[in-house]
Amino acid sequence: MLKYKIMRSLFLLVCCLPLMIQAQVNQDSIMIKKIADEIMTNGKAYDLLRVLTKNIGGRLAGSPQQQNAAIWGKRTMESFNPDKVFLQACKTPSWQRGGKDFAAIVGLNGKPTLQKLEVLALGNSLGSHGLLEAEVLAVANFDELEKRKEEVKGKIVYFNSEFDPTLIQTFRAYGATGVYRWSGPSRAAKYGAVGVMIHSLSTAPDNAPHTGAMEYDEKQPKIPAVALGPDDAKDLYAKAKKGTVRVQMQTYGFFLPDADENNVVAELKGTEFPDQIITIGGHLDSWDVNEGAHDDGAGVVHTMEVLRTMKALNYQPKHTIRFVLFANEENGDKGGLKYTELAKTNKEKHILALESDEGGFTPRSMAVTCSPAQLAYFQKWTPLLKPYGTEVTGGGGGADIGPLTTYDKNTILASMVPDSQRYFDLHHAKTDVFENVNKRELLLGAVNIAAFIYMVDQHGVNP
Amino acid sequence: MLKYKIMRSLFLLVCCLPLMIQAQVNQDSIMIKKIADEIMTNGKAYDLLRVLTKNIGGRLAGSPQQQNAAIWGKRTMESFNPDKVFLQACKTPSWQRGGKDFAAIVGLNGKPTLQKLEVLALGNSLGSHGLLEAEVLAVANFDELEKRKEEVKGKIVYFNSEFDPTLIQTFRAYGATGVYRWSGPSRAAKYGAVGVMIHSLSTAPDNAPHTGAMEYDEKQPKIPAVALGPDDAKDLYAKAKKGTVRVQMQTYGFFLPDADENNVVAELKGTEFPDQIITIGGHLDSWDVNEGAHDDGAGVVHTMEVLRTMKALNYQPKHTIRFVLFANEENGDKGGLKYTELAKTNKEKHILALESDEGGFTPRSMAVTCSPAQLAYFQKWTPLLKPYGTEVTGGGGGADIGPLTTYDKNTILASMVPDSQRYFDLHHAKTDVFENVNKRELLLGAVNIAAFIYMVDQHGVNP
Repeated sequence: MLKYKIMRSLFLLVCCLPLMIQAQVNQDSIMIKKIADEIMTNGKAYDLLRVLTKNIGGRLAGSPQQQNAAIWGKRTMESFNPDKVFLQACKTPSWQRGGKDFAAIVGLNGKPTLQKLEVLALGNSLGSHGLLEAEVLAVANFDELEKRKEEVKGKIVYFNSEFDPTLIQTFRAYGATGVYRWSGPSRAAKYGAVGVMIHSLSTAPDNAPHTGAMEYDEKQPKIPAVALGPDDAKDLYAKAKKGTVRVQMQTYGFFLPDADENNVVAELKGTEFPDQIITIGGHLDSWDVNEGAHDDGAGVVHTMEVLRTMKALNYQPKHTIRFVLFANEENGDKGGLKYTELAKTNKEKHILALESDEGGFTPRSMAVTCSPAQLAYFQKWTPLLKPYGTEVTGGGGGADIGPLTTYDKNTILASMVPDSQRYFDLHHAKTDVFENVNKRELLLGAVNIAAFIYMVDQHGVNP
Repeated sequence: MLKYKIMRSLFLLVCCLPLMIQAQVNQDSIMIKKIADEIMTNGKAYDLLRVLTKNIGGRLAGSPQQQNAAIWGKRTMESFNPDKVFLQACKTPSWQRGGKDFAAIVGLNGKPTLQKLEVLALGNSLGSHGLLEAEVLAVANFDELEKRKEEVKGKIVYFNSEFDPTLIQTFRAYGATGVYRWSGPSRAAKYGAVGVMIHSLSTAPDNAPHTGAMEYDEKQPKIPAVALGPDDAKDLYAKAKKGTVRVQMQTYGFFLPDADENNVVAELKGTEFPDQIITIGGHLDSWDVNEGAHDDGAGVVHTMEVLRTMKALNYQPKHTIRFVLFANEENGDKGGLKYTELAKTNKEKHILALESDEGGFTPRSMAVTCSPAQLAYFQKWTPLLKPYGTEVTGGGGGADIGPLTTYDKNTILASMVPDSQRYFDLHHAKTDVFENVNKRELLLGAVNIAAFIYMVDQHGVNP
């Protein structure tokens, strides 16, 4: 294998020669290579992620871990010596899981049985106030719910929100089924359901349940809602389609008074356009059931790594660059909303904001939401990024930066898009831990973000 | 996060619309979508890999596991009902590790110490015949060895064959340092070294040693050789550069008489060009210290999955397609050499051979070694493959199929090239196990191979 691999290495070298020759006369290529070498050789993103996940841990808004993460984020970014580091205080929800969620099949076709189910209550859902027992109404989707609405009263509705495995981009599958997690409980409560179960939004060949945010419709009863582990969900659905199934569930969710949290912001002041701001960010909060390693520890340490690298290379940006660790995304988006509110209050001009919130996997594209002319302009940078794995595509954004366009529709939104195959194996499940992050993949994400932001800073956003 | 993700999904959909409209009038797009849907929905590659890695295990040539793997491979491919399945008997080396490899630092600057080192003997290396103790001569590379050749006699030479982390394609780093594993022992023995240690060929931030093949120069003494875990290697190198280090090592390697193994070949007979053969393959053998999950269980089950899918879709190829599980690649390439020998004996015409031997990670490209005109022709297929993750590039091949070009230089060599960031974390180390393979990534590899081979079969290899 070795000989062939050396041969292929030489081929790659020869193929890249034209690009490399061009690079010698291209300051941008040289600078991007410097950025990449610095990050791949001296990068701290992986070590920082170890501290965030192992020393601090899961960081649900309102938790002491989230407070610790903000303090750590501020101190660590201060140690990189930017022009300033400051906090933006904001109120966040403080949802509490409150206990160990429980569910079981207790009756099958009229006969008692006992089969424990792997479950997690959905984030923001309220507790069952004791043990709830009811017959299951299993539906494939909202269409079937509407058709069978007369049957719903007094039942626990199961939505078969299984991912479509043929969608190659897993975010498309998430987009298609996520609506059952978000609004399934109130859609079922409208017709008298007493509880809701969904198939976890998961691609994993395992039985780990995946939590994640839901939202009650204030006009409907606030019934408890859980996500089932994929194996248990498939089993329940098969049983419910063939006969009658009774289940028990008990959840404990409640809210404490809103918590005082902070966005953590570091800033490099622009030398030419100090009033034009470029933002890079990820969110500090995570769910309670894991370490939030990919979601969004990766985005947090990507952000910090880009700052560290710019300072290590003594890079003085033309525009002001902000490095933002957002306080709350998972269940309220309060961090991003506060960032936009203050941008508006302070009459700031934001030319571009980029988020990393799709995991620490090998980067595949830098996605940008902008005019067709601007996209064509950005896409001319693809040859500079391709050696590091990405191309420029349309369609970028993120929950934390999204609100900026409600204040200024000209703000360009962007995101680093990593390979999506593994993300929903562990997204919001207990498996989203440091051990499932690969060092080189994580660092390469920072390389591509830093390279893209360098290009935006050097050349601006207008063709 | 959900709302933004749905938004991006819609964007992707809109972006893909032109392609999708074209697809409706394009039989190839339709067939490739059928292939992809079949594999992503009903694919057996992951389940087959579980059996190969967990029920059978590590499969060094000459081991009973390798015999079992060939029997399993034959029976499983027969169950997919191809036109025929046959064996190609070949002799393979039967190298035995022979015991638990040992090394330790026992002296530092003249004072006794005791620090155990994580090591694995290199494949094909012979044992130390008892405990070997000597001073270390640590060199950065062969240049330094040559400069310091007078100091080598009686020493254990350490080559600092650490990967260059700035090479984004990790196979390039492997190509650059692999030569120390392959020929380092004899290069050092030439000047009187009594043993060799190398830095494991690894990208992992851990201390797991990585074995792999070496080759003795028959003119030099056959001294024992080991790979050190990366942390221990860095530590040893730092100590040896500052002072004198004495080490002990004991290895047990030896050869049994050559073993009787088999390539396992399944065949679909071509309807239009039965005498023109397209080969797809991976190698059954692995190292003894792991399950050979990525190297090359992935290639084996990719090969089987493509056969299964063609039969499931009732696809009747124009050309004859061979699905080959090669008997021996790691330490001798005897499987591929036998395949070529029989091709020559039987005067077969091989138009293209494709290997999957770079792991079961997300596919990035279909790489092809051919004339520039042919490459331009194949690259017109990129829009068909891109929705599944790959583009057509130059530079494909593989150790098992490589010999075919020594028989017929017109045979085109190709390979499926997955993302390379994680491969050398576990390549030839104990961590190359089933748990480190992702189901969707593995299946996507089969999708891209099947799609590419379908195109080759439908349209041939000539512009």
